[in-house]
Amino acid sequence: MTIAQKTRERILRHGLDLLSQAGLSGVTIGQLAERAGLSKSGLFAHFRSKDEVQISLLDYMAGFAQEHIFSPAMKAPPGLPRLETFVARWCGWAERAGLPGGCPVAAGLFELDDIDTPVRDKILAMEKEFHALLQQLLQDCIEEGHLRGNLDREQFIWELKGIYLSHHASHRFFRQSDADTRARTAFRALVDRARPAPKIAKGATNRFAR
Amino acid sequence: MTIAQKTRERILRHGLDLLSQAGLSGVTIGQLAERAGLSKSGLFAHFRSKDEVQISLLDYMAGFAQEHIFSPAMKAPPGLPRLETFVARWCGWAERAGLPGGCPVAAGLFELDDIDTPVRDKILAMEKEFHALLQQLLQDCIEEGHLRGNLDREQFIWELKGIYLSHHASHRFFRQSDADTRARTAFRALVDRARPAPKIAKGATNRFAR
Repeated sequence: MTIAQKTRERILRHGLDLLSQAGLSGVTIGQLAERAGLSKSGLFAHFRSKDEVQISLLDYMAGFAQEHIFSPAMKAPPGLPRLETFVARWCGWAERAGLPGGCPVAAGLFELDDIDTPVRDKILAMEKEFHALLQQLLQDCIEEGHLRGNLDREQFIWELKGIYLSHHASHRFFRQSDADTRARTAFRALVDRARPAPKIAKGATNRFAR
Repeated sequence: MTIAQKTRERILRHGLDLLSQAGLSGVTIGQLAERAGLSKSGLFAHFRSKDEVQISLLDYMAGFAQEHIFSPAMKAPPGLPRLETFVARWCGWAERAGLPGGCPVAAGLFELDDIDTPVRDKILAMEKEFHALLQQLLQDCIEEGHLRGNLDREQFIWELKGIYLSHHASHRFFRQSDADTRARTAFRALVDRARPAPKIAKGATNRFAR
């Protein structure tokens, strides 16, 4: 690693802490230069604009998400076990990845909803990849026979994102200790609604009807 | 209304637009003074600190939430009709109330999760009231026999907040046109899980088991 690369890495590491705690709008050139022990012009030698810093930080963050969410999930068998591992690793991932202030993308969804900037476009592009991955995980579940073929996958993903956001709010803002349990219960109910219809042998009566 | 009251009202109206679009951290004294056509010292004659401005804005916002969510819901019959009206009015309420940038509290949940400030305390206090109201709406549903008595109400509310947050993200950030339909489907499924067990006559067989 060259000295320039090392400095860039140091800036990104400090920037990610700042991003996680103060949100995208909190990552100012001044604040970041101070944290990384550089002058503003020293920082501009590595990043030409605030947008470029924020986009680089989101890319840098994606590496942590890969390590803490995607890679462990891909080690689980395809289908429901992989989806379950993914969701368990996703909820609360930011803190486990050493981002003390929570998930920058979740915060960005509420912070950048009114502004059309390259940073919003970056989050949209990341989200698109993330969405495609969730679709693939669900497709695997269907192919393995763990979830039903006529499942409305977009609805499933929509509700799953709600579980993630509610977990983030309850864990981070309300500091509730039962956020993991709540998320697990909600996810289990979502999966139960998506399971294939049980096969009932001809002529059998439903034992619950007795 | 005195002139001072009128000026205060004008500041709050401009402040609410700013709050809705730029989030709590975007409501700076300088920005707000500019929007309201006042000098910074003119603004300080009405609010002594940035925290006081933000807390006053949240109180001011609560009046709009009352008008657009709570009052219409209370006109519906108690139980499920009232809960349904409440949820329909809650999702997307901010835009209907003329807050172009979405719900300031939802944004605050992700913006202020790391900071212990009087503003975070204010959101916590508002959330506590809101939570108590949701508990009451569920209690009514149980008493009316619309939802089952052993329902885990905290879980229900936790998941309902997830639906609200996912609606906010999909409608505002992703600008998806089907956010209302997705939220309605998710809410219906949540309610279905919470209904009382169907009463089955003794000796009857379940027609689905045939």
